[in-house]
Amino acid sequence: MKVLVIGASGTVGQAVVQELGLRHEVIQASRTHANYAVDITQPASISALFDSLGPVDAVVAAVGELHFGPLSDMTGEQFRIGVNSKLMGQIELVLRGQHVLRDGGSFTLSSGIVGDEPIRYGANASAVNRALEGFAMAAALELPRGQRINVVNASVLTESLPGYGPYFVGFESVPAARVALAYARSVDGADSGKIYRVR
Amino acid sequence: MKVLVIGASGTVGQAVVQELGLRHEVIQASRTHANYAVDITQPASISALFDSLGPVDAVVAAVGELHFGPLSDMTGEQFRIGVNSKLMGQIELVLRGQHVLRDGGSFTLSSGIVGDEPIRYGANASAVNRALEGFAMAAALELPRGQRINVVNASVLTESLPGYGPYFVGFESVPAARVALAYARSVDGADSGKIYRVR
Repeated sequence: MKVLVIGASGTVGQAVVQELGLRHEVIQASRTHANYAVDITQPASISALFDSLGPVDAVVAAVGELHFGPLSDMTGEQFRIGVNSKLMGQIELVLRGQHVLRDGGSFTLSSGIVGDEPIRYGANASAVNRALEGFAMAAALELPRGQRINVVNASVLTESLPGYGPYFVGFESVPAARVALAYARSVDGADSGKIYRVR
Repeated sequence: MKVLVIGASGTVGQAVVQELGLRHEVIQASRTHANYAVDITQPASISALFDSLGPVDAVVAAVGELHFGPLSDMTGEQFRIGVNSKLMGQIELVLRGQHVLRDGGSFTLSSGIVGDEPIRYGANASAVNRALEGFAMAAALELPRGQRINVVNASVLTESLPGYGPYFVGFESVPAARVALAYARSVDGADSGKIYRVR
């Protein structure tokens, strides 16, 4: 399979590239990649990437920014960081990608544990992660030609504890290599409309 | 209590005004209201409304547009109809309203059954409804001074079947008067972070 991994330079992305690379041709894209640069907040950038690649068998999105901060002084502008990046970025990947994904191909999106388990400062993350899961469940009903869509919802990454640990006290972290297995299940398996919770 | 109902001219809004009016002073706002006009897609309009009212004890949002249509030709622009209206409109109501809501006051937002039960043409609705529920669950952890937040997630309204019935074949509809009871539980009760499912 020819698999496009967007966010390939991130912690999860790198682990996904390694896992999928065992069996597939993996094309790595990221905001600063030399050959496959993409900014998911710019729909034209997404279309340009798909145009340059031609048909693919799978699209993995391990990408998207969120806003973390206290609700008491949160602004709509801050909230729109997650809406424009992690939410609309991944949704644009599907809306545009459905036209170039091969028959039976898959989309695998990324949500996160804060959708299920709210934390202080995480209102933006809870909203965006849940939205992505709702979108995928609904899109699974309509995608054409056997196309599939799933979402990986992981706990905080063990590798991210130095930065995010204080938000997630008491949560069990998961190593990126374990999270990558869920993306592999989505790409290589037959599921659609599924949320893989990695805990 | 002084209760602000936004979307008061809608089917749910009217039922909520009637139910809450039995016990409370209800201020009705809507896009075209003579005294309390508000366009929730315009944050400045929301702020102007709060400024004109002064402190309130409860804010009820029975408001927000969504996009319904086939995924196969859905555009990001269409998807943003729901994001800018039903999602960000209600979230801006909370982000701005928290500063004028009285101690112990409540926000009651509106999601909908398509967040739980995806339907054809409903990808935007599933995403937006879930996002609102995630936001409310998280905001409930942080709202100051005993402020509360809940969400009403109703099935298709009996009154809306003439327009929306074809999307909801086989669903049991609920009359707006029953849905209004859930808003009353939120306003008059002690809950926070709760999703009231009216089925």
